[in-house]
Amino acid sequence: MQVTVDAAGNVRGLYAGRQPDQPRLIIGSHIDTVPAAGAFDGVLGVVLGIALIEALDGRRLSFGIEVVALSEEEGVRFGIPFLGSRALIGTLDSALLDRRDKNGISIAQVIRDFGLDPDCVPMAALNGNVFGYLEFHIEQGPVLDSLHLPLGVVEAIVGQSRMEVRFRGKANHAGTTPMNLRQDALSGAAEWIGLVEHEALGTPGMVATVGQVEALPGAGNVIPGEVHASLDVRHANNEVRVRAVAQILKAAREVAGRRGLTVEYETRLDQNAVAFDPGLVASMERAVEAGGWPVHRMVSGAGHDAMVLAAKVPVAMLFVRSPGGISHHPDESVHPADVEAALETGLRFLEDLDASRTLQTV
Amino acid sequence: MQVTVDAAGNVRGLYAGRQPDQPRLIIGSHIDTVPAAGAFDGVLGVVLGIALIEALDGRRLSFGIEVVALSEEEGVRFGIPFLGSRALIGTLDSALLDRRDKNGISIAQVIRDFGLDPDCVPMAALNGNVFGYLEFHIEQGPVLDSLHLPLGVVEAIVGQSRMEVRFRGKANHAGTTPMNLRQDALSGAAEWIGLVEHEALGTPGMVATVGQVEALPGAGNVIPGEVHASLDVRHANNEVRVRAVAQILKAAREVAGRRGLTVEYETRLDQNAVAFDPGLVASMERAVEAGGWPVHRMVSGAGHDAMVLAAKVPVAMLFVRSPGGISHHPDESVHPADVEAALETGLRFLEDLDASRTLQTV
Repeated sequence: MQVTVDAAGNVRGLYAGRQPDQPRLIIGSHIDTVPAAGAFDGVLGVVLGIALIEALDGRRLSFGIEVVALSEEEGVRFGIPFLGSRALIGTLDSALLDRRDKNGISIAQVIRDFGLDPDCVPMAALNGNVFGYLEFHIEQGPVLDSLHLPLGVVEAIVGQSRMEVRFRGKANHAGTTPMNLRQDALSGAAEWIGLVEHEALGTPGMVATVGQVEALPGAGNVIPGEVHASLDVRHANNEVRVRAVAQILKAAREVAGRRGLTVEYETRLDQNAVAFDPGLVASMERAVEAGGWPVHRMVSGAGHDAMVLAAKVPVAMLFVRSPGGISHHPDESVHPADVEAALETGLRFLEDLDASRTLQTV
Repeated sequence: MQVTVDAAGNVRGLYAGRQPDQPRLIIGSHIDTVPAAGAFDGVLGVVLGIALIEALDGRRLSFGIEVVALSEEEGVRFGIPFLGSRALIGTLDSALLDRRDKNGISIAQVIRDFGLDPDCVPMAALNGNVFGYLEFHIEQGPVLDSLHLPLGVVEAIVGQSRMEVRFRGKANHAGTTPMNLRQDALSGAAEWIGLVEHEALGTPGMVATVGQVEALPGAGNVIPGEVHASLDVRHANNEVRVRAVAQILKAAREVAGRRGLTVEYETRLDQNAVAFDPGLVASMERAVEAGGWPVHRMVSGAGHDAMVLAAKVPVAMLFVRSPGGISHHPDESVHPADVEAALETGLRFLEDLDASRTLQTV
């Protein structure tokens, strides 16, 4: 491969096709992870890309392959994720480059200190010569492990709604206020949390989570007068998600009305689902099937570089089982046999693509 | 009245009976309250005691009356409530006097700085010559106001159980963990909070409150792996309370078991109910009735000096309506007509007591 580091710090290895300047497939993932994490998040996808080039053993295809180790996906330092993949689609702009870490050091400065030129970031963007993006990634969830499957074909990244929901009642003495004269914001919020769970359980493919809750004033002997709770709803289908969020907020109003509470909410994030390329996803399915593994289509509940790249190029993604669903933790692991399965599948995917593109060219 | 200040800072006015050294009735309440509070908590009971002496207009009864303005009921400075009433029953001992405020100043030192002698605290204790304790107090709750009643005859102070309950599940990614593979400690805790409310609603006279709740790790996109919640259960009948707490903990175990969570709890307070003197309570009822007001017996959901005194002497207590149930707040108030009703009732109570004690003496 011909290796370069672009101005966003992405390490890029180009393995040319049979002819120079043939259209390219990008195989990428990220080489950063969160602090105190494991050894496979992101970097496994980069290693698999390199291993695929090795597996080709010098064989040239009807397209070029560019393996990209993306520089910054998690957003730990600057609070902005996907810096590397943003550079590839041309949205790592000067406003983002001015973003500073908690010590006041900008992304542009960090790039400069690393020996690169932030002014050259626009040159990192993909040109029209790229026809697809392929990403291997550990699942970071328990689905494949619970189904005893090594691989999952990702067809979409879920859409997300995040909000803060606030119930207001009346703080009062826990001893002197009879049950029938209470406006207990926490009892109302608790009932609603049950309905959030109920809504998600009744909607296939949906997850809904209340991860934060705070009762005020927060004393054991005072009836809570106010509760702040987070809500996180995800689904691959935007309509289904929007409808479920509306249902959940309606339930909150119903609970509040019945209990003499008020409820209000504030939307923090409303991000549509990202569908991957049907053709590439189908190719990936065929490659999994040809290896003798059960085909399992799934949606990713978390964001990935592939989601960013999908704005510009057709994308496919293959998940590798996460034993115990553990990720972002030192115990994060993979089964070696699953990595081999991913490698074999990737190779079949490339060969299938090579055959079909050769056919097209002929 | 012959006025003294005892070594615990209680201001005591003795209004002797027909003969000197006749048995005494104490009429008392506290003259402290919490910071940023209202004008009636405690001090109304002291003022009513003094007003009753005024209303007697020099008339002497078959017993003495000692009006006591108790020095420290709330426990704000030293974290220990009922210092004044403890002195009256002889339990403000040297260990308590050594208790320090956040600046390291002991109760004994504060007494000394005030110009009193902490070594004389034992002399503040009531001797055998006291036959009863009467306390007027604002209700500090909404019951009388909701029933449109000026007065309530308190027959007991509720018993209290307080504990911390901890649910443990498994923190996980809110996006990648399907609903059926979750061990969401907050969903479990929320279900249990509903059952706490249900138990209290189904048990007449009971109040049960979850006033504090904390979900860990406490991020909107992470399924809570742990929840800490407070529990406060109160009832006038100890057996009923103990049974309800057992039921609530059983419900917690049932919810946890069904959801793959664990639950544990820690008892923080287990205080039995304090029943007041049936004879004095009946006298108070007659006095209310004779004034033409509806008689409403009730239990106090909060602690009062009367609860401490009940360990040594027969006790009765009369609640005055708290408009809106508001207390420990600048908006704390009373209706003047209710205070008049309390004064009239108190006078009838004294006259009734005088008649019956005169009869006994004859």
